[in-house]
Amino acid sequence: MDFVEIVTTRYAAKRFDGTPLPAAEVERLLDLIRMAPTAYNLQPWRVVVIPPGSERAALAEAAWGQAQIESCSHLLVFCANTALEELAQRLEERLLAGGAPAESAADFAAMARGWIAGLGEGRLAWAQRQTYLALGNGLNGARSLGFDACPMEGFRPAAYAELLGLPETLVPCALLALGRATDAPRPKLRFRRDELFLSAPAAALA
Amino acid sequence: MDFVEIVTTRYAAKRFDGTPLPAAEVERLLDLIRMAPTAYNLQPWRVVVIPPGSERAALAEAAWGQAQIESCSHLLVFCANTALEELAQRLEERLLAGGAPAESAADFAAMARGWIAGLGEGRLAWAQRQTYLALGNGLNGARSLGFDACPMEGFRPAAYAELLGLPETLVPCALLALGRATDAPRPKLRFRRDELFLSAPAAALA
Repeated sequence: MDFVEIVTTRYAAKRFDGTPLPAAEVERLLDLIRMAPTAYNLQPWRVVVIPPGSERAALAEAAWGQAQIESCSHLLVFCANTALEELAQRLEERLLAGGAPAESAADFAAMARGWIAGLGEGRLAWAQRQTYLALGNGLNGARSLGFDACPMEGFRPAAYAELLGLPETLVPCALLALGRATDAPRPKLRFRRDELFLSAPAAALA
Repeated sequence: MDFVEIVTTRYAAKRFDGTPLPAAEVERLLDLIRMAPTAYNLQPWRVVVIPPGSERAALAEAAWGQAQIESCSHLLVFCANTALEELAQRLEERLLAGGAPAESAADFAAMARGWIAGLGEGRLAWAQRQTYLALGNGLNGARSLGFDACPMEGFRPAAYAELLGLPETLVPCALLALGRATDAPRPKLRFRRDELFLSAPAAALA
């Protein structure tokens, strides 16, 4: 499916038919998510995959009872991963294992560590933004594979962390419900181009 | 181009050949960005488009002199738009203009306003996360159109806001340099599946 078709036909499905998606298709989606753009290649996120047939009453309750939680096939919980030093360390090891010269792996890791140090109190917010790049691949990816998805922010992250037994370093920030929709998209409404894009005033650049 | 090919071949180009991309191609990209997923359809972002031929020395300086700024064709400055009440109002008007019943437009806008009110001090961070969904469409979209891109966070947002004469409500959060790359992608390195994806422990869900 062409990217234009993906982005114009994708929509947030509100109702799913409850049938499970083939596991192999979901695996393909996870690989599309895995390839998401990521600054310094730190990949500061993890996704909890909740398969069909799981008991989800408590998760639904912690998401204001929204029907997608229990009617979807797989539910993905996108979490920001704030253990950034660990990721920089792992990255350095992988660069070395992949044959990079020790100096260049060390330089890259030092650059990443410098970035991390500069984040200060913005660490979680940064990891969350990066997580949204992975989420975006999940949304477009589901459509490219011919199934439907609903991104959801309306849930209690702390309740999800507790229900899923997550460590403090993993902070849930968005859900992605996957399945076969039983509703239909409404016409896509977007603001006008001139409301979303600005031409840089020449004067400002001179 | 298939989405699998897009996400596996896309990379952060570090050098561009300096030639301008056809304006029509860039317009196509802007429309792909415009279609990005967006919570409550609020579209809380704006993108400043800096065309080829603009004087960019000051912008490069405010981005640690990175070569992409001056060697790319178009430079897009992705900004979070924090004027959320204004966007909710505009959305309600567009829903009405599009033929939605007054009550359903009002209900939708009320829901969006409730969400906005609940953001509190998280308003900017939320708008920034949403902006990254648009950025993701820009990254994948550029590849789908056959040109190259480099996402950049290494710049001084306040300096960009000043150079571009932006109002306080628009906060630069990422750059997207577009053009024809003169470098080549290195093999894509990603963490293992089991390092990025977790199966929900059955016990946690019971």
